[in-house]
Order: sequence, then C-alpha cells, then structure tokens
Amino acid sequence: MEIQLPRGFYVAGLHCGMKGNPTREDLTLMKCGAPAVAAGVYTQNRVRAAPVEFCARRTPSNQIQAVVVNSGCANACTGDQGDRDTEQMARWTAQACGVAHDSVLVMSTGIIGELLPMEKLQAGIPATAEHLATDNAALVAAARGILTTDTVHKIAGHTLTLGNQTISITGIAKGSGMIGPNMATMLGLVMTDASLTPEDAQRLLGDVTTETFNCVSVDGHTSTNDTVLLLASGKASPQPLAGDELEEFRKGLFAVCEQLAKAIADDGEGATHLITVDVVGCASRQDAFEIAKAVANSPLVKTAIAGHDPNWGRIVSAAGYSGVQFAPAEVSLLLNETLLYEGGQPVSFNAVKVSESMRDQRDTQIVLKFRSGDQQCRFWTCDLTNEYVHINADYHT
Amino acid sequence: MEIQLPRGFYVAGLHCGMKGNPTREDLTLMKCGAPAVAAGVYTQNRVRAAPVEFCARRTPSNQIQAVVVNSGCANACTGDQGDRDTEQMARWTAQACGVAHDSVLVMSTGIIGELLPMEKLQAGIPATAEHLATDNAALVAAARGILTTDTVHKIAGHTLTLGNQTISITGIAKGSGMIGPNMATMLGLVMTDASLTPEDAQRLLGDVTTETFNCVSVDGHTSTNDTVLLLASGKASPQPLAGDELEEFRKGLFAVCEQLAKAIADDGEGATHLITVDVVGCASRQDAFEIAKAVANSPLVKTAIAGHDPNWGRIVSAAGYSGVQFAPAEVSLLLNETLLYEGGQPVSFNAVKVSESMRDQRDTQIVLKFRSGDQQCRFWTCDLTNEYVHINADYHT
Repeated sequence: MEIQLPRGFYVAGLHCGMKGNPTREDLTLMKCGAPAVAAGVYTQNRVRAAPVEFCARRTPSNQIQAVVVNSGCANACTGDQGDRDTEQMARWTAQACGVAHDSVLVMSTGIIGELLPMEKLQAGIPATAEHLATDNAALVAAARGILTTDTVHKIAGHTLTLGNQTISITGIAKGSGMIGPNMATMLGLVMTDASLTPEDAQRLLGDVTTETFNCVSVDGHTSTNDTVLLLASGKASPQPLAGDELEEFRKGLFAVCEQLAKAIADDGEGATHLITVDVVGCASRQDAFEIAKAVANSPLVKTAIAGHDPNWGRIVSAAGYSGVQFAPAEVSLLLNETLLYEGGQPVSFNAVKVSESMRDQRDTQIVLKFRSGDQQCRFWTCDLTNEYVHINADYHT
Repeated sequence: MEIQLPRGFYVAGLHCGMKGNPTREDLTLMKCGAPAVAAGVYTQNRVRAAPVEFCARRTPSNQIQAVVVNSGCANACTGDQGDRDTEQMARWTAQACGVAHDSVLVMSTGIIGELLPMEKLQAGIPATAEHLATDNAALVAAARGILTTDTVHKIAGHTLTLGNQTISITGIAKGSGMIGPNMATMLGLVMTDASLTPEDAQRLLGDVTTETFNCVSVDGHTSTNDTVLLLASGKASPQPLAGDELEEFRKGLFAVCEQLAKAIADDGEGATHLITVDVVGCASRQDAFEIAKAVANSPLVKTAIAGHDPNWGRIVSAAGYSGVQFAPAEVSLLLNETLLYEGGQPVSFNAVKVSESMRDQRDTQIVLKFRSGDQQCRFWTCDLTNEYVHINADYHT
C-alpha cells in the first residue's frame, strides 16, 4: 500500500543543481495549509551547523508553515555567512510558499565547510514550490531530495484510529552518505495530521528519538547537522490529543521513527548486513544503551559480521569496555538465536551453521544478556566492509 | 646501535607450535638472576583474561623472577579452566627457570574464548628456558614471540647516566594483529637495571602509561588482555633511585614507552599512515585526551587520511562530539603544518599541496588548537584501509 501524506501537508522535491547528477533531486519543500505545531531534536555535536542553530531557536512552535531542505552542502563550519545564508533560504521559502517569514524551518546536509550555492537556491526554491502536491510521487520526490549517497529513499507511514478520528503519521529520513565524502548525516521529517500541543509534540519526539534515531550508528561519528522535525497539522481533530489517545499516538510515532531508524542502519555506507543489538537484563536503560552502543560501534564486531564470522569474543569484549560495571560471569550471548556464551563460559556450538546463517541473512541479531536488572535497549547498526572504506577514502572533497 | 638487555635479565623466544607457521616464535620467557621489582598496568576492560587477573594479584612486588608470554591464544573468557591453566603455566615456568613458584608473571595474547594448548606449553616452556640468553638475538626472538599479526617486532631502548651509575631501560611490545581474527591486543614488557622500590615502579609505570600506551588506538576496541609490565633488577645500584634521579629515570622510561606506543600505531592493522593528533589549549589534560581520542577513533577521519583527503570537517566535527565543552569559534586546525581552519572559520588553502603531503609522508600530523587553557595531549593512531577490513573480515575464527 502506498504511504499517504497526512492531511494539511504539501511536499515537493526537485533537482536544482546542487548535486551534479541531474536525475537526483537535491531540494525538498514541505508546506502546511495553515500554521502547524512543530518540534525538533538536534545533534549533540558541539559544532552545530547554521540551520541546526536556526531551527533550535524556532522550535517548539505552533506557527510553522514550511520546511526547506537542501542536500549537497551541510552549511556547517561556515561562520557568520552560513547564518546569513540560512536566514536567506528561509526568506525565499516564505516568499515562494506564501507564508509568514518567521514560519519556516531549514535543514541542510552534505559537505562540511563550504558555503551554500545561493544563486541555485534562489532559483530552485520557487521552482520547487511550483511542484508542491499531496500525491505519492511528490512524497517520493521529497524523500529523494534530502538524500546524499543513500542508495534508497526512506519513507515510513502509520495510521491509527482513535475514537472517531483517523490519524496518519508519515516520515522521511536520510542516512549515511555523501556526495563528496562527508559526515554520516542524519535528517528526519515526520508529518502528522494529529492535533498536538507544542509541548506534547516536543516531549513525544524527544522520547521516541531516544529509542529510535539515537539508537542507530553507522560509524559512530555524530554529525554537525543531525535534525529530526515533527510537524502536526491538527487536521484530524480540533482538540489536541491527551491521555490514552496521546499514548496511542506515541506508539504510532515510535513505529514510524523505528522504521526510519532501521532503514538508515540498513542503508549504511557499504553495508551488507543490518545488525540489531539487543542488550537485556541491565540495572538501567542507560547501562543497556552504553553496552549496545559499544558493541554496535566496534569495527572488530562489524568486520566479523561482514565476514560471516561468529567471533563472539569481540562482542563480549566490546561490552567489557563500554564503561558499564558488570560481573563477567553473568554474561550470556546469542547470535542469530544460537547460544555462544553462557554465564561467562564458552559454549560448544556449530560454528559452520551460525556462519551460514550470517551469510544467508542480511539481518543479524545479537542478544547480550546480563543479570543486573530488567532494563534493556535495542540498537541498530550495519557491518563494516571494504565498500565503506572505498566510499570514504577513495573519493576526494 | 643494537639495543642491549639491562643487567640481570635473560630472555628467549621459541616456536612451540601455538602458531601454525614454524618460522614464527610463539613463546617468550624472561628470567631475572635474582628477585626483581615488578609493576604492572592492566586493561580497563570489565572482561579481563585469566593471566591479567593473575598478574594483577601479584604486582607490585619485589619478588618477581620470571615472566612467561604466549601468543596464539589469549586465554580470555575461558572461565575457571582458564585460571587453572594460567597457574599451571606459572608452575612450569618456575620449574624450568629454577625460581620460586610464586615469583612468575604470565601474559597471553591471541584468540579469545579458546583454552590454552597445555601439552604444547608443557613441552615448550622448558625448551624455551634452554635458550635464555642476554644477547641481541635472544632479545629479538623474545620480541618476536609475543607478536600476533604484527608485521615487525618492536624493541625500544634508552640509556641514562645518573652520577656514577649507568642505567638501561629496554622494552618490547606487540600491537594489533591476530593469527585468527581477534582483538587489538597490546602487551608490553619493559626491563631496567635501575634500582626502584615497588611503589615507585608502580607509580612511574602508571604515569608514563597514561601518556604513552593509553594514547594509542588502532580501532578503539580495548582488549581483554592489555598488559604492560615493568621489571627492575636493581643491578645499577644498591639503593633505590629517589628525587631528581628518579625523575630522570621517569623521562627515560617515558622515552621507551613512547617509542613502543608509536610503533604499535604505526604497525596497526592495514595501516599506511601513522597519525599523530596533538590537541592543545584545553582547560584540562582530560579534555585534550577526550578530544584527541575522538578524532583518532573516527573512521571518517581515518579513511580520509588513507585517501590523502584533507577533509578537515571530519576532524572538527569529531572534536565536537567528544563530550568536551568548547566554543566552536575558538577552534583552529593544522594538517601537516598547513592551517585549514581558524577561529571557527574555513581558511583558504592549497588542497592539492596538502593532499600531496599526505600521499608522500607516512607520518600525518593533526594539530587542533583551543583557547580554553594550557593543557594538551598527544595521541597516536593509524589510518583505516581496505586491508584492515580484509584482515578482520576475510579470515575466520
């Protein structure tokens, strides 16, 4: 089934000359028919790109009517000129969309340290605005316009019925890729016709991001531009969601963000495996998160999986340097559902069979069990292949 | 000049069958003529190999007379049997060397999760003991016996004169490599004829390790077996060093450990560049260390250098996610002595010339300058190449 745009939103994506390949869209616009509620979560990097600073000042809000996204240039580490360029992008977008000049949000992704090609944006923004539409082709073009070297576009949708209202939640995201070699920049834009207060929108987006987008890693290198925006048009009902209905909405938002997060890991640069790391039985979620992140970021774990090697010692030892306190004798490990290590002792297993499962499945499941409590975390990453090195070493800025 | 063994030490290295290739030594012995002072520093990994737990219980000490090291098997994650095997290795070594049974230290490196081949060690330890000698050939054989897939053996020496005593400090180390794919295990053994108290030996080794071995990374994956031992025979003088003389010794120890640490990074798996990261102008050494480590561990920085790409955005953004607070407008960056980024703004530079310097030199220097204080840190790493992936993905356990 084709994923639909929630009511109240119009989107477009167009090639405006920022990418060399004319078949690749590089500018995305989103417009709301009326001011929408908007929430944003942004990179934890101390070095934040100009559009990140810009959006962080404008969210949460109940007055957002447009979002403009360019790929090809991150507008990061660009000093005062970068700030002025972001403001100019927002002004041109307001003009082209016929909305208030302070109702626009801006995202950029691409190479760091170069100034935006402003003349291309000046022509490209109004040209893209002419394509704003609500159909699936427009949604796909918008999803394509934010990509860098992603190999597939990423759209996720979820519909839920609450009493007599039907709510759609639709998101697009980009993963790790670049036009010149660059950051594993992550952008996400989630639209819904649900009615939300700005405070609820911000809180829900923060909560859900913690367990979805913040649990993804390709190479552990936090970008200067990471941004996820949630826009709520309120078309589904006049009154903001509350109580149980808000909780139901949260689950739907989680489903959309989880799907996009997994898609980012699955399309990580050079990836041949999507790796899901489940850490269970910890004293706190933070402990489980730190262990899962250490395993997911270990190049030795990632290369072992690329090579179909059930090298459990690399996984257990990555947990060991995560900074979390645990008793080694309480650790057990399953790889693709086979027990490899139990209570701190190696277990005899059929290594050929486990290796074959790694060869035959793109999905690889790692489950690390502790006995410190009942908290857990799920984290997604991809394997590390020659192609990752090729993409990031063999092309020049 | 050939590096000499300090007075009071005898060493040997022999192939005993733990590595498949009969031209590669896989067992190393060190014996002291009389009980020596010994200090040790060990991995921070929560999952520590059996020999690490064993050595940690026996150091610091003034009663150590022998050290046995095997490569090919890390004896990590091996449960109670691993502990018993380490104790047995120590007993066989005590018998073969004619020393007290509680005067032996043990190190292991190699694959995780497999039990030691005890019958090979039972025969190999006395066979190796027959080769104990003080000449350079014995030192080289000992340095080779601790290697895994290192491409070169690593020996460093330093001599200093204090008043009427001449002191030698000689160390051997292994870096990142494996016979099956395995951990970036680091082992070091430093011998000196200086006279030291156990307390001074332990304190100096800890201080020096903080600025040398702990400032090296190949892939950020802290091993289960990391161990550095310092043995002091006291042959240079009857009285332990103190005051200024102890400080002079510390400088010599630093020189030896720094040389070995650099050699480990330089011989990192698949490395084509030795990368030195200098972070200066920080409020604390810890801040400088965290920033340097984040830059050194970034796969995007490491692949850029492999590809001779002066992609400074990756370096600045890695500093940004190090967790250290700083004002982006205060950051400057030099790469191979060329200024690329100053006070938070890109600087115009000759990218072709900088790229050529990266192509033509194995040494790559990154200098990141902050304006938060006067503390600094130097960190060593290597680039990330296809060969790293090949070594770690394409061979199976």
